[in-house]
This record gives sequence, C-alpha cells and structure tokens, in this order.
Amino acid sequence: MVYNFNAGPGILPPEVMEEAARAVLDFNGSGLSILEVGHREAPFVAVMEETRSLIKELLQLESNREVLLLQGGATMQFMQVPMNLLATNQTAAYTDTGTWSAKAIKEAKVFGAVDVVASTKEIGYTSMPASVTCSDTSAYLHITTNETIAGTQWQNIPYQSRVPLVADMSSDIFSRALDFNRFGLIYAGAQKNAGAAGATLVVVNPDILGKTDRNIPSILDYRLHIKEGSMLNTPPVFAVYVVLLTMRWLKKQGGIAAMEKRNQEKSDLLYQTIESIPLFHLPVSKESRSKMNVVFTFKDPSLEASFSQQCKEAGIVGIKGHRSVGGYRVSLYNALPLSHLEVLIQLMRDFAQRNG
Amino acid sequence: MVYNFNAGPGILPPEVMEEAARAVLDFNGSGLSILEVGHREAPFVAVMEETRSLIKELLQLESNREVLLLQGGATMQFMQVPMNLLATNQTAAYTDTGTWSAKAIKEAKVFGAVDVVASTKEIGYTSMPASVTCSDTSAYLHITTNETIAGTQWQNIPYQSRVPLVADMSSDIFSRALDFNRFGLIYAGAQKNAGAAGATLVVVNPDILGKTDRNIPSILDYRLHIKEGSMLNTPPVFAVYVVLLTMRWLKKQGGIAAMEKRNQEKSDLLYQTIESIPLFHLPVSKESRSKMNVVFTFKDPSLEASFSQQCKEAGIVGIKGHRSVGGYRVSLYNALPLSHLEVLIQLMRDFAQRNG
Repeated sequence: MVYNFNAGPGILPPEVMEEAARAVLDFNGSGLSILEVGHREAPFVAVMEETRSLIKELLQLESNREVLLLQGGATMQFMQVPMNLLATNQTAAYTDTGTWSAKAIKEAKVFGAVDVVASTKEIGYTSMPASVTCSDTSAYLHITTNETIAGTQWQNIPYQSRVPLVADMSSDIFSRALDFNRFGLIYAGAQKNAGAAGATLVVVNPDILGKTDRNIPSILDYRLHIKEGSMLNTPPVFAVYVVLLTMRWLKKQGGIAAMEKRNQEKSDLLYQTIESIPLFHLPVSKESRSKMNVVFTFKDPSLEASFSQQCKEAGIVGIKGHRSVGGYRVSLYNALPLSHLEVLIQLMRDFAQRNG
Repeated sequence: MVYNFNAGPGILPPEVMEEAARAVLDFNGSGLSILEVGHREAPFVAVMEETRSLIKELLQLESNREVLLLQGGATMQFMQVPMNLLATNQTAAYTDTGTWSAKAIKEAKVFGAVDVVASTKEIGYTSMPASVTCSDTSAYLHITTNETIAGTQWQNIPYQSRVPLVADMSSDIFSRALDFNRFGLIYAGAQKNAGAAGATLVVVNPDILGKTDRNIPSILDYRLHIKEGSMLNTPPVFAVYVVLLTMRWLKKQGGIAAMEKRNQEKSDLLYQTIESIPLFHLPVSKESRSKMNVVFTFKDPSLEASFSQQCKEAGIVGIKGHRSVGGYRVSLYNALPLSHLEVLIQLMRDFAQRNG
C-alpha cells in the first residue's frame, strides 16, 4: 500500500483512476480509446459540456459565469490574466504571499504596472496578510488563495475590494465553500483537487473582459474560448475527461460542503498531532495555516533522515518539504482518505515516543 | 471492430493504449497512478528525458537541437513562434496553403509584418505552391508541411531559403524522412502521429532564439523551457507519457523510414482505388496529394448518404470531410494498419459495383 501526500500532481480517487483506465481502452463502449476519439464528435462534446456544467453546479456559479478548460497550467494564467485584464497604462494590485504569487507578479509586469498592496515576504511568507486595501483605480486585485509551498491559506478572502478579485486557486479549489461569484476570475491547474496535469480551469465573469485595447492572440483571448465553448482548438481530451470523472466523484461525495468538513477534520487532526509533539515545529502562523498543505519541520534537523526513512518503509510518499522551506509538507487534498492520514499520524507518534 | 480514420485526435497503436491504461492504474509498479505522481520525482523525470531523447534519435537531430514538450497545441505555436522570432519592425515570410497556414498568418500579424510569399488560396487550396522565394531579410519562412483539411502536402520542402525555415508538422511529423536539421523550428500537436491531445512537440535550433527585443512572458519563452529541460512548470504528465509510448512503438517498428514505406503503400493503394472508380473525384492536384489525409468527393453528391451509412454499418469512423471541403477525408496516420484500410477499400469497390 502506498500513501500519497504529493503536493501536486496529487492523489486522485481510486474510482477516477479505474474509470480513466477503462476509457483509455474503450471509451463509453465505442470500441475506441478516449485517446483517439475526435474532439468534435458528439461523445467528447458531451464530456466537455458535462464537465463545464458540473463545475458550475459545484461552485454554485451564477448563470453568466463562464467555465473554461484550457492548457498551460497556472503559469500560463500568470500571463494570460494580465494580457486580458491589464492595459499598458493601468496598474494591477497584487498580494505577495509566496513563491506562486511572486511568479504571478513577475509575469504581470510584462503587461502593465503592478502595485504590491500586501506582502508577507519579510516574514518568510509564514502568514497571509491580515488585511488588504487597494486603489479603486486598480485593474484588479490578485490573490493566491493557498500557497502550496509556504503552506499558508487565506482564511478571510478580501471580497470587499471594489475592483475585480482575481484568484489563483490551484491548490485549494473545491476544498472549501467560498462565495465564488464574488470573484471576477478564478484559475487553477487541475492537478491537485480537480484532476490530472494537463487541464487548467478558468472561471470568469465575462463582464470584466474586453476592457484593454491590446491585440490579444486568439489562443490567449478568453472571449474567443468562451465563444467556442472551450473548444477553440483541440482540447486536452483525456485531461478534461479526468476532470469530469473527478467532478462526478466530488458531487457523489456531497460536493464542496462535504469536502470542507472532511478537510477540516483531516487538517485539525494533523495540526493537533504536530502541536502535541515537542519534536516538531510549525513555521506558519496559526490563523494562516493551510488545510491543504501542512508544513512542519523538526526542531532538531538531525532526526530528519531517520524519520524520512521510516516513512519510506511505511509506503508514505510525497512528504518532503519544498527545497525553499525544508522539512516536511503533507498535502491533504480532497481525495486523501482520513485512513491514509492516520497511518502517517501513527508513525509520527511512534517516532516521537522513541525519540522524545 | 472499429476502423478509425479520424483526422486527429487519430488512431494510436493498440500497444500504446494498453500500456497507457496500465500506467493509469499503476505506473511502473510504483503502486501509484501516473496521474498522481510528482513530476519532479525521478520516475517522471526519466519519462521526460527518454521522450526528448527518443524524439531526437528518431528525427536524427544534430546535437545542438532542442526538443520541448509544451502545451496548447499548434494554435499556441501560431503565436509563440512570432512572439519569439519576429521583432515588431521585422517581416516574416508565410506560405498560405490552407486553413491552418491562414490561422498561423493571422496570429503572426499580432507581432510584426507578414509577407505572404506563396498562396494557393485562389485555387481553393487544392495544391501546394510549386516554388517559394522569400527575401533574405525575412525573420523566417513558415510552411505547413501537411494541410490536414485540404489534404495537401509539401513534397519538395523549400529548404533553400537563407532564413530559418519554420514548419507546422502537426499532421505529418514522423510519417516520412525529411532533413529535420534544415529547419530552424518545427512544431506539432501530438494528437496525430506523436501521441494524444495535450502535448505539443517543438524542435528548435537555439541559435535562432533571442534575436527580438521583446519582453516574452516566461511560459512562452522557448529559452526558458530549454533551460528547464521542458519542465518550466508542471508538464502534461500523462500526455507526455503517451508520446513516449508512441515513440517507443515507432522505434520498434523501424523508425521513420519504415513508416514512410508503409504510408507510401497505404496512400498509393487508396489513391489508385479512388482513381479507378469513376464515381469519385480527387480535388487535390496529383503532385500535392497528402499521404496522411486523403480527400475525395462523389461526383454525384446524392450517393453520399448511402455510402456514409454503409461505412457506419461496417464500423468505419472518422471519414467525413471537413465542412469547408465536403466529401470524405481518410486519414492514414502511422498507427493505421493496412488491413484497416483494406476494409474501407473493399467497401468502396463494392459500393462502386452496385452504383456504377
């Protein structure tokens, strides 16, 4: 048995993998693999439509919101967002809360001015900003709802800004109930809670588009993707299908509300365990702790080698911390069952007892 | 039995599908699905490296050539090529040979001037240009080696230009031996001869990069992808793996030379059959006929309904012509066995006999 705590690509439900593997051999009894069906044929058009509509339902989106499945990951969105929303003579407000938001800021500067309205860089990205205010003349306000590397998460989304709120939700979309309609644009790589790598989810309020004078290449123009029903060109067929399977699974589990409850239980259990063991240190401030990516270190780093070895022997994978933070990072995505976490927790307790 | 003549996504070898399905359940005996493995972990890094190196070997590329696996399809390359190669005050030479080259031209105009140095638009894109000359001051010369919709293919590649030759090879890469080292840049969506939708192949001579002053967003900068070994961000893991499986299959079959021989046989057989049946019409001029996408129509369109119905009953799929051309289009990609084509040919002959 393998216990997968990878930060992303991360764990997916076994049902999703089984159904995906079946479709690679025979898609819907067509006698063809999903890898060789035409994307303009009815069976795949139905997949695309069900995927978009299920996402809309699960996020409880208002009718005018558009759901797109694109390519290139959040890194593509780092530039596609300002290309579509930030005119050359405008300023966009960004929050600098970790590696990912810093990358988003860098790409936005290619297109216009950036005003960093809140930053936790000085404290090593160990918390999210307490509050944010941005000018009413900003093109938009950008936040990263969950910083996968730092292990921080916005607990109070700054909805109150009077400019469109744009969010990178790559590592926490579908994990908790938010008022998704209060965002102008949401983007997320699929490879954590939404499916496999290769599809990128974009939710956009079309009212915020078309306001820059920029000549946007077709493939990067959200308006054209909307017009073509997310089929401007050949979509990443299999990756979209895995998103569909993941969304169906999510709905069957009770949707986002059920996920939020489970994720709360899992993260409470893990944080409480870490807090209860004096060997461990939690670098992130309590009010900003991520429920998706739990970061901790050993106070005595010399214990790491032995702990890592024991985890490996127990079949626990993907807990090594990002090189910029060190220590450990345990990702608790939607598909991770409590029982898998309990294996890790038991090992942590046993280790503490022997080394305490 | 289903006979798949789809124009793309198209047929893949059964071994590729079987191995891909196995990896969705358990990747390399790791106990994890390929959909949930970390892309920076050794097993996937090895996949990426083997894929790039096999492509280099199969295309017989010189050592300085770089192979990238990106996202977004050829449509992304339509803009990424000029963004990287065409300065605002420069002109790029393009050949206008069909729907796909016309799209490439449209996107290039976002970045600089375009000089259409040859066009077959006036004759309905029914042939490739007899010759091409372009100014030595052009940033590059762009061709579409095979027009999937029109059913035309460059038989004599215009290697002689003194500027970098850039080619969209989406629908004929790996199908015939070309001097791939004489191209400055080659791009191809994977979903015909190279794998499944979701990965895009780019082969580039790095010497031609870095010559515009443009500030290029990271995700669109070939130089950064080269620097990061095609892992600038999370790659489309599964789609890359399917490319690897397809390349391994291709090598086992005898590489491009073996494919070219088979594709010649298949296309000869089909064109000869069509020519021998007076019911059919071949719109493409003989010297430009594609060996990948064979386009034909009925002289009497009223026969189409009955022919289509009989094909459907025989399990023949994907032969409907593109709406802009009408009639039929039979795609003969590498993975299509001669035996599948023979089923179609027998049906065509029987149909002709009953309706001749």
